[in-house]
Amino acid sequence: MTTKEVADKLVKLCSESKFREAMESLYSPDIVSMEAGAPPGGSREAKGLAAVAAKGEWWNANHEIHSGKVEGPLVAGSHFSVVFKFDVTFKPQGRRFTMEEVAVYKVADGKIVYEEFSYNM
Amino acid sequence: MTTKEVADKLVKLCSESKFREAMESLYSPDIVSMEAGAPPGGSREAKGLAAVAAKGEWWNANHEIHSGKVEGPLVAGSHFSVVFKFDVTFKPQGRRFTMEEVAVYKVADGKIVYEEFSYNM
Repeated sequence: MTTKEVADKLVKLCSESKFREAMESLYSPDIVSMEAGAPPGGSREAKGLAAVAAKGEWWNANHEIHSGKVEGPLVAGSHFSVVFKFDVTFKPQGRRFTMEEVAVYKVADGKIVYEEFSYNM
Repeated sequence: MTTKEVADKLVKLCSESKFREAMESLYSPDIVSMEAGAPPGGSREAKGLAAVAAKGEWWNANHEIHSGKVEGPLVAGSHFSVVFKFDVTFKPQGRRFTMEEVAVYKVADGKIVYEEFSYNM
């Protein structure tokens, strides 16, 4: 798949809340995922599909999604960018907020090999 | 200015090749600019308006722009993303190529305080 095909498929699947399917079909086993900041005692970076899937599972278990949308993609060479906006409740605190972030992805050999999220801490 | 207003103005000025004006009107004196990779013997990071302006001047002096376009912005909270596509000749080598990159910007107090470019090395 081209960068644009990967980008369009990611947007489509995430728009349908099929995050797990997006990961399984589009991510390289060697994916590197970078957050804007590190969690307490943790790292900004997760390496490998298992670590990235675990991060996604933690997020899903701890947030209730009321609504969400994905904007983009903007495609440039082997990179693309999308924006995520979610109205969520962080379950452990019962705190509802809007999560907005810019995501940048790098594609190699038809798979996403790098993702980085930018948002306010 | 809101993030969206800064983003729209950056896209407008860059679409008109007014890069210098964009920098002078939209960038914080404390801007941090991050390239995808470091030049030989250099750093990925430029700090402060003077260093970032010098990087821009080097680029302008060494590239002839045949055409260019800016796509976006995608706006999320205090961040936004655009894509640049330039058909340029790198003058020292007479080499013509298409430069495509994703740029992510962070806005604080109405000014761009951080920019990061993603492209293949």
